[in-house]
Amino acid sequence: SQSVNMVVERETKPESVALRSVSAAGAPQPEVMGIFGTGDLGRSLGLRLLQSGYRVVYGSRRPHSCGPVPQGAQLATHAEAAKKASLIFVCVHREHYEFLKTLTPHLQGKVLVDLSNNLKKGMYPDANAAYLQELVPGADVVKGLNTLSAWALQNGLLAGKQVYLCGNSTDAKRAVSEMATKLGLTVLDRGSLSAARELEDFPLRLFPEWRLPLLVAAGLMGFFYFYLLIRDVIYAYVEKGQDISYRIMISLANKVFPIVSLVMLSLCYLPGCIAAFLQLYRGTKYKRFPNWLDRWMLCRKQMGLVALGLALLHAIYTFVIPIRYAVRHKLISRVVDEMKNNKTTPFYFDQTEAWGTDSFYVLGILGFFLYLLLGLTSLPSVGGSLSWREFSFVQSKLGHLTLSICTAHGYIYGWNKFLSTSTFKWYTPPGYMLCLIVPSVVLVLKIMLLLPCVDRALTRIRQGWERN
Amino acid sequence: SQSVNMVVERETKPESVALRSVSAAGAPQPEVMGIFGTGDLGRSLGLRLLQSGYRVVYGSRRPHSCGPVPQGAQLATHAEAAKKASLIFVCVHREHYEFLKTLTPHLQGKVLVDLSNNLKKGMYPDANAAYLQELVPGADVVKGLNTLSAWALQNGLLAGKQVYLCGNSTDAKRAVSEMATKLGLTVLDRGSLSAARELEDFPLRLFPEWRLPLLVAAGLMGFFYFYLLIRDVIYAYVEKGQDISYRIMISLANKVFPIVSLVMLSLCYLPGCIAAFLQLYRGTKYKRFPNWLDRWMLCRKQMGLVALGLALLHAIYTFVIPIRYAVRHKLISRVVDEMKNNKTTPFYFDQTEAWGTDSFYVLGILGFFLYLLLGLTSLPSVGGSLSWREFSFVQSKLGHLTLSICTAHGYIYGWNKFLSTSTFKWYTPPGYMLCLIVPSVVLVLKIMLLLPCVDRALTRIRQGWERN
Amino acid sequence: SQSVNMVVERETKPESVALRSVSAAGAPQPEVMGIFGTGDLGRSLGLRLLQSGYRVVYGSRRPHSCGPVPQGAQLATHAEAAKKASLIFVCVHREHYEFLKTLTPHLQGKVLVDLSNNLKKGMYPDANAAYLQELVPGADVVKGLNTLSAWALQNGLLAGKQVYLCGNSTDAKRAVSEMATKLGLTVLDRGSLSAARELEDFPLRLFPEWRLPLLVAAGLMGFFYFYLLIRDVIYAYVEKGQDISYRIMISLANKVFPIVSLVMLSLCYLPGCIAAFLQLYRGTKYKRFPNWLDRWMLCRKQMGLVALGLALLHAIYTFVIPIRYAVRHKLISRVVDEMKNNKTTPFYFDQTEAWGTDSFYVLGILGFFLYLLLGLTSLPSVGGSLSWREFSFVQSKLGHLTLSICTAHGYIYGWNKFLSTSTFKWYTPPGYMLCLIVPSVVLVLKIMLLLPCVDRALTRIRQGWERN
Repeated sequence: SQSVNMVVERETKPESVALRSVSAAGAPQPEVMGIFGTGDLGRSLGLRLLQSGYRVVYGSRRPHSCGPVPQGAQLATHAEAAKKASLIFVCVHREHYEFLKTLTPHLQGKVLVDLSNNLKKGMYPDANAAYLQELVPGADVVKGLNTLSAWALQNGLLAGKQVYLCGNSTDAKRAVSEMATKLGLTVLDRGSLSAARELEDFPLRLFPEWRLPLLVAAGLMGFFYFYLLIRDVIYAYVEKGQDISYRIMISLANKVFPIVSLVMLSLCYLPGCIAAFLQLYRGTKYKRFPNWLDRWMLCRKQMGLVALGLALLHAIYTFVIPIRYAVRHKLISRVVDEMKNNKTTPFYFDQTEAWGTDSFYVLGILGFFLYLLLGLTSLPSVGGSLSWREFSFVQSKLGHLTLSICTAHGYIYGWNKFLSTSTFKWYTPPGYMLCLIVPSVVLVLKIMLLLPCVDRALTRIRQGWERN
Repeated sequence: SQSVNMVVERETKPESVALRSVSAAGAPQPEVMGIFGTGDLGRSLGLRLLQSGYRVVYGSRRPHSCGPVPQGAQLATHAEAAKKASLIFVCVHREHYEFLKTLTPHLQGKVLVDLSNNLKKGMYPDANAAYLQELVPGADVVKGLNTLSAWALQNGLLAGKQVYLCGNSTDAKRAVSEMATKLGLTVLDRGSLSAARELEDFPLRLFPEWRLPLLVAAGLMGFFYFYLLIRDVIYAYVEKGQDISYRIMISLANKVFPIVSLVMLSLCYLPGCIAAFLQLYRGTKYKRFPNWLDRWMLCRKQMGLVALGLALLHAIYTFVIPIRYAVRHKLISRVVDEMKNNKTTPFYFDQTEAWGTDSFYVLGILGFFLYLLLGLTSLPSVGGSLSWREFSFVQSKLGHLTLSICTAHGYIYGWNKFLSTSTFKWYTPPGYMLCLIVPSVVLVLKIMLLLPCVDRALTRIRQGWERN
Repeated sequence: SQSVNMVVERETKPESVALRSVSAAGAPQPEVMGIFGTGDLGRSLGLRLLQSGYRVVYGSRRPHSCGPVPQGAQLATHAEAAKKASLIFVCVHREHYEFLKTLTPHLQGKVLVDLSNNLKKGMYPDANAAYLQELVPGADVVKGLNTLSAWALQNGLLAGKQVYLCGNSTDAKRAVSEMATKLGLTVLDRGSLSAARELEDFPLRLFPEWRLPLLVAAGLMGFFYFYLLIRDVIYAYVEKGQDISYRIMISLANKVFPIVSLVMLSLCYLPGCIAAFLQLYRGTKYKRFPNWLDRWMLCRKQMGLVALGLALLHAIYTFVIPIRYAVRHKLISRVVDEMKNNKTTPFYFDQTEAWGTDSFYVLGILGFFLYLLLGLTSLPSVGGSLSWREFSFVQSKLGHLTLSICTAHGYIYGWNKFLSTSTFKWYTPPGYMLCLIVPSVVLVLKIMLLLPCVDRALTRIRQGWERN
């Protein structure tokens, strides 16, 4: 193509010879990249650079006894390597940066890429890259690529991966960016070297967006576990003298999981309703939401995934019910009782009971199936292949359908015991009643928002119309 | 590298000063991007542009009261913003485009990116971008990036995402394309502005490739549900006076799901066989397949995933069997019957029955497991990491193995009742017999294609050989 | 942007007219790409090129009867097509390359892209691309893109996909690379044309990294199957004259799967421990690990996934237990026995048994759930979105937790029969005891590595410290 030809023409001009010596075959030799350090990261990076068509020279304290480097790479002292390459990766730990001071003359005008990470946040007062720049003021330090692990480099898991860069020299950043693009990475420029600190903290983050959802789930689980423990196990012990403490392991957990799962799922859809009513009340969409609402809305995906995890646990706990000792024991006892009481066969078959329990299971299964579909679309590669309308269809329509079905699953659970006094042990409502409150509220709010008059007003507001 | 140096040299030339003022540090200032509109999309886009190293200026009707914009961005009137930026994103709804007419003198020669989407297909007679171009004839309108949601922009889900562009000016498209590449997007040029309509319809598509498979599945499920309803529930009511209507919920569904799943799975592999026989018959691969076959072949993946979904439902329905009221009732009845009839213990243990049912379950489990593996490789990120041979191994070898195992699962289901008259209620064959027809045909066709003589002829045709 | 403007300026210069004729509208016409061959691959590639804004001309033996080409593409003889395009894709099989010899004068200085693949390794003594270069010495042959299937091209599954190139001419490679980037691909340069062989073998590889893990799993499964067959089925037949051969299908398999799964999971974590002790012993991290350890460490992910697959099978096998004929038979027998022996109801409820079996199930379920989480993070798109610390948290902390829970699951299985002599049939230990050896060793080693003094020494070594 035209622009290619243009670049090529220029490359054969004399001034380019300094950088690219012409090989015997007439093709220009590939660029030389320097790497200081022959550890895991250095070796893996070198291998990847060689595979992308670069030449690689390693700088090492002991070039003759530093262990193997990838085939095709050169080994040299730090000073020699610095001379040969214009772009040098510093793959050593910050503690060993000191030696770079002695190389200052050789590093004048070179691009130094600082890939280092720390083991903990706040280990040092300044960023590693800032410290490096201070040691070698004549070089252009670029911080970046530090999210790449030796493991990802070795296994070629780079394609399309996003990496960050920062640095004071635009030229240096561009050189690194071009190299990274050749490696298949996608580069985001985060500005000057003052952002290095942020970049160095990046690989140290530990699921920050999962904290709130997990905290909420843990809190709810703790509460409901304790509540049901009192109502079921302690109540039976105190009032009837029965020891059913073995139920803590499976029966109680299999009540807590679906309860918290349903509450978490409805908490995914509650902030959307609140936001809609807030916009209706304010009559504009241009006012910011309160901070708590913003934060809540940003962790809906994680909340949904926690809810899915609990629903999966609920499903598995349910599947193992019939092989449990206590359940088999109860079944056998019941048969023997039937025999002892000399009941007539065939027994009375309770059609309502059969319909009720089967509907209960069917709603649970369908709800779980839709849950799984929702979870699948939150996989980055699946969600990324959906159009905007598809994504909103899945997350909104399918999501609310899932919530409705799961809520119905909950209501049917108590279909024939809602008003019986025996369910209100020690005057407390059973767990499933408590857990139906939030989803019911969300569904009522959602139905109100779907009323034609409300929907019309909301649509206008979301298209930019303002009341005043 | 050489080409980088070249670009940099030019950037310090006088003519570039107009666009990039040199900062005190000597580094050229980043380019300014304009955004009209401070809504969700505008704010998210601005944030992302700032993070990628651009400067951002917002144009607003009311620069002093338009709500918060990302830190570091400027706020100005539309006219001022138009002056500062050469590339401007129009993040307002089409209904509000009118005001751009008044800005015509300021937009002369600027690139206007139209990111707008409509709520429905065919809301307006012309494309939004064409309308924009008509309003501001002096600007170069580029339609594109409209598949990006504010949500995806906020959450940085851009890496490797494909976006489309179209426009009449190649230069304008190139400028947008370069910006998009910096944001980590992959750009596909769809030609002139006349393609804008198509691009605007793109985010409105709703699973077009899933329609046919879902329709086929729904049709098959409807048919088999009705068929089994008559054979099971209505037959029992009419002939024996039993009310087993409760079986509609789970028992019937758990027959329909595997039946339709198996038929859908075999429909994935049938078009491949038909195509092969067509090529053998025609003696060439250069004639196009009939349209219906092409369409069928294009939705095989979706057919397979629908089949997997139904198989999963079948599995879950099977797991809950033992906790159902009707099943427990039957079990207890049977025990009491045994006791009443005073049979001797230990009962007769039917080895054939034990082997038969266990084989039935094992084939079902293994078939489901292979189904899952097939489904996993259709995840974009997993399938994308397979080599061509691996992918074809999984989809063809493993796929046909899955089909064979699931078909065997079906045959074993009726192993001891194939010819008993009691299975032919009202002279109709049971559902599982009907559902075995298509998979059996597919497997026979596949075996015929694997015969050495047929295989050789087909391979030659597929390598380009022609009979005449 | 500045660099865009620069490129555009140059494009309107006279020398570019030869390549890009200016259309009536004033916009430069897009570049012409040539494609030899109108088969599946040729058609799909042409479609994709047209969509990316290129013009396409097909070269065909019979331009008037070669079947349909994508709308907008031209059809011509090979010679005419060669004249119009400077970059030509050769989409014909190697057997038909011969005809290119006659086109030599038209192909002088053109870039020929060889996308061909062979059906088997070693079909020809030389690489297809080398053969092509030999036939047309005046052209610049580039081997590459051969991992793209017609199927992937048709379905637009290119975004972010990695493709390889090799060739002797840097300019030719750059032209191809630029085109591939426009198609959304990520290009890796693999050097000169001598690498063509390797590139042609690439699409023929068949899960090379899965071979060792699958072999180990198959070996272990064979051993344990045989071992348990002797201990369970043959022992019962020989010593007690019982025929329990039906247990081969499900009961035995459901012992072998969890046993091998647990051993495979612990084999994922064993090499990490060995490596750590090796580094402690050597006092340096700069010595290479022995080859077997390197290979072992590289297939840990696959080992873990095989273990997950077996754990899933174990779970499903467990869920179907209660609907098996043999299990129901046993249950009914037991009830009838209870009745015959005239035991009192309520039976004695064994609290310890209830606690023991329930704990057993809970540990199994939680272990399986964590297994699933580990498996999810090994999906490329999920793992790729994790930070380094998150990934290592999941793979190391969560992984060892999973191993501990699954090992505890195993220990509880035998909690009340560890020392009873009846478990040592024919003086052999039961399978679950054997399978607990490796995980117990791994956990003990891991605990030793976590001791403060050992951990400190290891951390220092991993930061580059050396003993001598």
